[in-house]
Amino acid sequence: MIRKKIKSKVNALVRNNITRETVKEKLSHAPGHVIYTGNKAQKAVSIDVFDYNDDYLDEETLARLEEYHKDTDEKTVTWININGLSDTVALTQIAERYKLHPLVMEDVANTSQRPKLDEYSDHLFIVFKMLYYDDQNQLNVEHISLILGKTYLICLQEYDGDVFDGVRERIRHAKGRVRSNGADYLTYAIMDAVIDHYFIIIEQLSNKIEELEDKIYTDNSQNYSQEIQILKKEVIQVRRSIFPLREVVNKLEKVENHLVLKKTQVFVRDLYDHTIQVIETVEVYRDTIAGLMDMNSTNIANRMNEVMKVLTIIATIFIPMTFLAGIYGMNFEHIPELAIKDGYYYFWGAMIVIFVASLVYFKRKKWL
Amino acid sequence: MIRKKIKSKVNALVRNNITRETVKEKLSHAPGHVIYTGNKAQKAVSIDVFDYNDDYLDEETLARLEEYHKDTDEKTVTWININGLSDTVALTQIAERYKLHPLVMEDVANTSQRPKLDEYSDHLFIVFKMLYYDDQNQLNVEHISLILGKTYLICLQEYDGDVFDGVRERIRHAKGRVRSNGADYLTYAIMDAVIDHYFIIIEQLSNKIEELEDKIYTDNSQNYSQEIQILKKEVIQVRRSIFPLREVVNKLEKVENHLVLKKTQVFVRDLYDHTIQVIETVEVYRDTIAGLMDMNSTNIANRMNEVMKVLTIIATIFIPMTFLAGIYGMNFEHIPELAIKDGYYYFWGAMIVIFVASLVYFKRKKWL
Amino acid sequence: MIRKKIKSKVNALVRNNITRETVKEKLSHAPGHVIYTGNKAQKAVSIDVFDYNDDYLDEETLARLEEYHKDTDEKTVTWININGLSDTVALTQIAERYKLHPLVMEDVANTSQRPKLDEYSDHLFIVFKMLYYDDQNQLNVEHISLILGKTYLICLQEYDGDVFDGVRERIRHAKGRVRSNGADYLTYAIMDAVIDHYFIIIEQLSNKIEELEDKIYTDNSQNYSQEIQILKKEVIQVRRSIFPLREVVNKLEKVENHLVLKKTQVFVRDLYDHTIQVIETVEVYRDTIAGLMDMNSTNIANRMNEVMKVLTIIATIFIPMTFLAGIYGMNFEHIPELAIKDGYYYFWGAMIVIFVASLVYFKRKKWL
Amino acid sequence: MIRKKIKSKVNALVRNNITRETVKEKLSHAPGHVIYTGNKAQKAVSIDVFDYNDDYLDEETLARLEEYHKDTDEKTVTWININGLSDTVALTQIAERYKLHPLVMEDVANTSQRPKLDEYSDHLFIVFKMLYYDDQNQLNVEHISLILGKTYLICLQEYDGDVFDGVRERIRHAKGRVRSNGADYLTYAIMDAVIDHYFIIIEQLSNKIEELEDKIYTDNSQNYSQEIQILKKEVIQVRRSIFPLREVVNKLEKVENHLVLKKTQVFVRDLYDHTIQVIETVEVYRDTIAGLMDMNSTNIANRMNEVMKVLTIIATIFIPMTFLAGIYGMNFEHIPELAIKDGYYYFWGAMIVIFVASLVYFKRKKWL
Amino acid sequence: MIRKKIKSKVNALVRNNITRETVKEKLSHAPGHVIYTGNKAQKAVSIDVFDYNDDYLDEETLARLEEYHKDTDEKTVTWININGLSDTVALTQIAERYKLHPLVMEDVANTSQRPKLDEYSDHLFIVFKMLYYDDQNQLNVEHISLILGKTYLICLQEYDGDVFDGVRERIRHAKGRVRSNGADYLTYAIMDAVIDHYFIIIEQLSNKIEELEDKIYTDNSQNYSQEIQILKKEVIQVRRSIFPLREVVNKLEKVENHLVLKKTQVFVRDLYDHTIQVIETVEVYRDTIAGLMDMNSTNIANRMNEVMKVLTIIATIFIPMTFLAGIYGMNFEHIPELAIKDGYYYFWGAMIVIFVASLVYFKRKKWL
Repeated sequence: MIRKKIKSKVNALVRNNITRETVKEKLSHAPGHVIYTGNKAQKAVSIDVFDYNDDYLDEETLARLEEYHKDTDEKTVTWININGLSDTVALTQIAERYKLHPLVMEDVANTSQRPKLDEYSDHLFIVFKMLYYDDQNQLNVEHISLILGKTYLICLQEYDGDVFDGVRERIRHAKGRVRSNGADYLTYAIMDAVIDHYFIIIEQLSNKIEELEDKIYTDNSQNYSQEIQILKKEVIQVRRSIFPLREVVNKLEKVENHLVLKKTQVFVRDLYDHTIQVIETVEVYRDTIAGLMDMNSTNIANRMNEVMKVLTIIATIFIPMTFLAGIYGMNFEHIPELAIKDGYYYFWGAMIVIFVASLVYFKRKKWL
Repeated sequence: MIRKKIKSKVNALVRNNITRETVKEKLSHAPGHVIYTGNKAQKAVSIDVFDYNDDYLDEETLARLEEYHKDTDEKTVTWININGLSDTVALTQIAERYKLHPLVMEDVANTSQRPKLDEYSDHLFIVFKMLYYDDQNQLNVEHISLILGKTYLICLQEYDGDVFDGVRERIRHAKGRVRSNGADYLTYAIMDAVIDHYFIIIEQLSNKIEELEDKIYTDNSQNYSQEIQILKKEVIQVRRSIFPLREVVNKLEKVENHLVLKKTQVFVRDLYDHTIQVIETVEVYRDTIAGLMDMNSTNIANRMNEVMKVLTIIATIFIPMTFLAGIYGMNFEHIPELAIKDGYYYFWGAMIVIFVASLVYFKRKKWL
Repeated sequence: MIRKKIKSKVNALVRNNITRETVKEKLSHAPGHVIYTGNKAQKAVSIDVFDYNDDYLDEETLARLEEYHKDTDEKTVTWININGLSDTVALTQIAERYKLHPLVMEDVANTSQRPKLDEYSDHLFIVFKMLYYDDQNQLNVEHISLILGKTYLICLQEYDGDVFDGVRERIRHAKGRVRSNGADYLTYAIMDAVIDHYFIIIEQLSNKIEELEDKIYTDNSQNYSQEIQILKKEVIQVRRSIFPLREVVNKLEKVENHLVLKKTQVFVRDLYDHTIQVIETVEVYRDTIAGLMDMNSTNIANRMNEVMKVLTIIATIFIPMTFLAGIYGMNFEHIPELAIKDGYYYFWGAMIVIFVASLVYFKRKKWL
Repeated sequence: MIRKKIKSKVNALVRNNITRETVKEKLSHAPGHVIYTGNKAQKAVSIDVFDYNDDYLDEETLARLEEYHKDTDEKTVTWININGLSDTVALTQIAERYKLHPLVMEDVANTSQRPKLDEYSDHLFIVFKMLYYDDQNQLNVEHISLILGKTYLICLQEYDGDVFDGVRERIRHAKGRVRSNGADYLTYAIMDAVIDHYFIIIEQLSNKIEELEDKIYTDNSQNYSQEIQILKKEVIQVRRSIFPLREVVNKLEKVENHLVLKKTQVFVRDLYDHTIQVIETVEVYRDTIAGLMDMNSTNIANRMNEVMKVLTIIATIFIPMTFLAGIYGMNFEHIPELAIKDGYYYFWGAMIVIFVASLVYFKRKKWL
Repeated sequence: MIRKKIKSKVNALVRNNITRETVKEKLSHAPGHVIYTGNKAQKAVSIDVFDYNDDYLDEETLARLEEYHKDTDEKTVTWININGLSDTVALTQIAERYKLHPLVMEDVANTSQRPKLDEYSDHLFIVFKMLYYDDQNQLNVEHISLILGKTYLICLQEYDGDVFDGVRERIRHAKGRVRSNGADYLTYAIMDAVIDHYFIIIEQLSNKIEELEDKIYTDNSQNYSQEIQILKKEVIQVRRSIFPLREVVNKLEKVENHLVLKKTQVFVRDLYDHTIQVIETVEVYRDTIAGLMDMNSTNIANRMNEVMKVLTIIATIFIPMTFLAGIYGMNFEHIPELAIKDGYYYFWGAMIVIFVASLVYFKRKKWL
């Protein structure tokens, strides 16, 4: 049963969201055709929009993409947040309304797209991954895309629920700098929330590693290689999500584009530091896990040693004694010792001497 | 039998298409001499030509290269697709007609040539590899060359059959952007089809790894090192084909040449992303396979442990008991215990005590 | 008991100061909000100020940050040294008074911030780590920040006590170049003291490695893998602190900024050399520790070999002899040897021959 | 005997042509002093000269370097090929005649010089290595130097015999482009011949690896670690020769110098591709050999497992049975079973039950 | 005893010349303060001076630094060679006389300073390491500094005795180019002598490796892990000295400074090649040593295999036979075989059959 669970968990991590059907479907279409490659079960698509500037705030929530008809204008920042990517027709409409490059929506819907930042003439396109542990404590990946225009930010998420409530609160109550800055600062705020959330993942990983480390250090009678391998896969998964993100944040900090202001880039530099910190911690975890593997193999070897010692001690003590007992069980017509008075007791005496001498020998060899 | 199959499979992967005869032949010729180094059995050579622009389409298929005499002109894009590289004379003629650099056709016919992009004054030369699993589920490599001129694209393939049917359909039915763009966009469309196909290979590799992982995790009584090694070799093979492709696509994106338009290069950037994604997945597979190897060795060590435990338990329990039985089989004239009434039953009692005590001991040591 | 200690030590090293509460707290605040993430027990905050130039010196110590009201002026260098980061309100006040960038104080209070150098228009911000062994001989990390302005240097430390007494002495007694140079030289002097202190850490690590090496080389009957793992973690910890410091020092040497004079940067180049030297030594330790692991596993394998040899020698000698004793214990009606006069002695002779022959055999195999 | 051969072979590979005498001799001389560091036994020095242009060809062979007095002139390309480097006096004379830099001839005669390309004002100096398997199937290295002037190419080889016969034929029969091009194209043609020859080495290595792989996969009862180590050393040797050659060819392609024409550099780019291909193949061999090592250790571990299983099965079955036989060999006055009619047959029945039950148990454990 | 020697040798290599006292002493002084960190036992300080140009030569030897009062002038090159660094007062005086940067003498006296090249306005400062094997065949490191001015070269060595006698001879007898070139060429000549000397170290390492390789390949009954570890440490030590030297030589070749002439840099390029060659050889040794480790562990595993086989063969043959002997030693009232005439001989026949059958079985399993 446990094996089964472990297995399915492992497979989930290996699969990497690529299924043959999706690939086949892609092969038969021209580049730029929008195909949703994620979990088809996620049907619901919802949309919520913030429109704000220093003095003004408007919040709206819609159940269907088509209902959204608001125009963005120069004076306010519009944050269009879309949950669910399965409605590819609506996505294509949005792409047309905002005059996005044909390849953008393909990457938005392609949930196996790796994190990247693409610079187009009048918009920036950012893809990254959100990590979270689900109810079964399995690590899951959510595909998130940001499209940053001059006065708007479109945020597209695979599932409902996100970690942007802090940002929303700050917009609603005009806390911090978000209301007085442009869409570029909002982009920063959203990415900051995501990267801050990585620290929670990191912390949960840390707990798991610690727990396993505890087990390995205290109860070395088990083989933990399966647990270690699974943990290693989770670390690799996190690494895969965060590594290209470094590149993205770095590009965002360096990009020379009217869409991102210099003063926002100072904040992005801080984001970059956090990304590096997550990466370094993950690297330390990789080292730690390699250490656990070493520990585990040494434990196995050591256990075998212990088993061997018990066998050797018992065999080494009793085999010669059994031989001697065999000697006096022989039926030779004349065995003088057998006729000795109290010979039996002398025999036992010899046995005890052998027994004690062996113990002393093993004591000296530090086997006992 | 299985060994035999495994062996030949492995050798096929190692051989890498270099045979001494081919090398010797090459040594005795000047550079630029066209020698076909591939599978000589592939005799048939066929050619099909698309000639199109926005309003016009002409499709032609020929059995022999010499039959092709169409001229390319400025107003249409001509896609000349050649299957089979064994007719080196015809290849040389084509090279002359299109004024290709002398080394181009040598590399077209040299099936062990690694992926590359060479820039000449009036044509680009691209070499890459197509991967596919054949009927025996063995990974095979097809050598494909593209020669991109101002108004033509020559595509040379080692074998019949390809993954470009999607592209052909789009040309025939004027779907997507291909008809309204030049030969550079066609180049992109063809490479996109190849790289999309890599995802199928990746997915099949993923299935194989998953299957083997399943086996290793559930039935750890086998040694899977041969299977792991073979899988590792396949991953290395894919890696070898895709790694230099990254360089090729990167050059194509960056190349400053009148043959490739800026607007096409935006699409090539997307291609580059896909290449990186394949490479990253392959790297994860390498890690996974390294993990499987670790699992496998730990399993072997663990199995030995288990074997040792059984031996040690049996020996540790019965060796002392056998000694005691030997004691009362001795022929000393006076052994008081032998005369005790019910001594035999007391002896059995002692045996059972030893037996149970040993079991308790092993239980505590967690060997049972 | 020992296990327990080892465990807690290990966990401490793994934890890396990130706790879920802190992360959660951060998630709900805007970037730039100052939250102290370190050990909350460190309540006391104190401040000491040096104000000096070539001819003038003023030293002041205050128990609370608010009490400090001195202005910095152009003619003197002011070194403001703050111990304890828990008073985030006071930190924010300082940030305001010195017109620091909003993110600076967040990083000052965030004790898990990795070493970095940020360049702002009128101040440089440097973060690094101080390492020390505490009373329980555990490796600890102190978070130190430097803010270098034109005429002032603010130094913020997590705990009381530092390694800057040498610098203070030199200021008080006008030794060396510190009094006749600006705040940039003071920055250099402080970082030099910290990096010199790393050599003490390095030396203590060296002693620990040497000690463990000694044990492994002389008493190979133990399994030292836990000790090795712990040492490895300490080395990783030091590496984590010093590696980004290289980057910081390098930036400081290269920075083109009116705050740092060229003649000071010549000194910083020397600092860089020292940093490299620490890093190289740490790398050698990593190699050494890898060597110890190899030694340890070989020792375990070798020990098993020895155990096996004893078992094999005893079993190989006595099992055949026991068989022969069994032979003459059989109850066949007619066993001619049993009736031979002195047969029992001949039997013993045969036993001794077997025994000696076995010993000679093992001697030749070099098992004895 | 086999060991001896293996040993000497290994040492030959390790020695790397550095002997203390040679080093000592070098230490006592000024830089630029020409000392032959190769095999002193190679005494004979011969020289052959090709003088050609499009219309003209002159071929000459001399036994001693001093006999050569021909002048190079602007109108023809002169290829001076020298076999044997032991006549250091003659080498110095050549250096003087062609006004070579003092260090050039030192490197020509220093057979342990690594591949490199040095650019002087009026000549290019190229050093590389030729690999070949000798009669004892040992990998040998020949030191080859090229000195490229405006109208001449001096080629200096350590031993007689080379792979340039193809080039000579092409010059003699005016095949290919060599006669109509300058000394730079000749340089390319010679290096091309050498790099093409590497493919033969690669192919022989491939055969050896395949053979060993065969053995390891089919007969896993042997320890192949020595064979693997020797193969690994050969691969390292090839790697050492080819790796710096990449750098040389790359420099030759990029060099901006009147000695090398742009149109020749297009060919050199192709050479570079071949070098990369050799390097990549060698890297794959390294991976393959690492895989063989893994296979070999797993085989050893697995073999031990098998040995253990046999022991455990035999011991586990017979030890309890021996104990029971011992029970009924005891001399207790009253053992009821002994008096049972057909008790002996019941005993045998019990033995068979134990035997079969054990077999079933092991079958289930998959040990049989 | 051997252990003790090995240990002390290892520690010596680990210690790396850093002692706590020295570090503490440094901590309490300002940067630039000259502290000798080497072996305090080396008390004697001597100085010898060469003053030369094309036509003139003056050689002088002094026992104390203070005695040297010669002025350097424009027309001659002055080589001031100082042996012994313990007289820090004299070093400071020299620094003042030649107007050296304050940090230079600190690094001269700091024997743990890593190799580097620092460029100051009117002098170059070069630090590197000289390696030698002492009488106890231990690898030692000597700290050497060069200070190159316009007309002088100051060479500071830790101990008496060096490898510069060849250079001195060439100056005395006006051999080679040294007399007709400036101080920059002398610098080159001295570094060339040092790097040539590395080849002797390399050759001795090669011999040691060869010797150990011999032992491991021929006598695989020993555990050589300690010897391998020590050799590995020596290789690491050489690597640590030579690796940064590459950087130094590279800088010297590239430096744009009036102190180093272009024509001298051509020679330095050659030096660079030699450095690379040493580094590559050391890298090969690292690989070789890794191979030896693998061999050693495989040998240990293999030895255990052999031990196991002997045990298994003996046990597998005799345990069933002992059981059968036990059978006929039972006291059942009715055991029909016992009464069979010649039953005893039939029994022996059965024993021989079992024995031979077992041998055949093991022969087939290739255990014999």
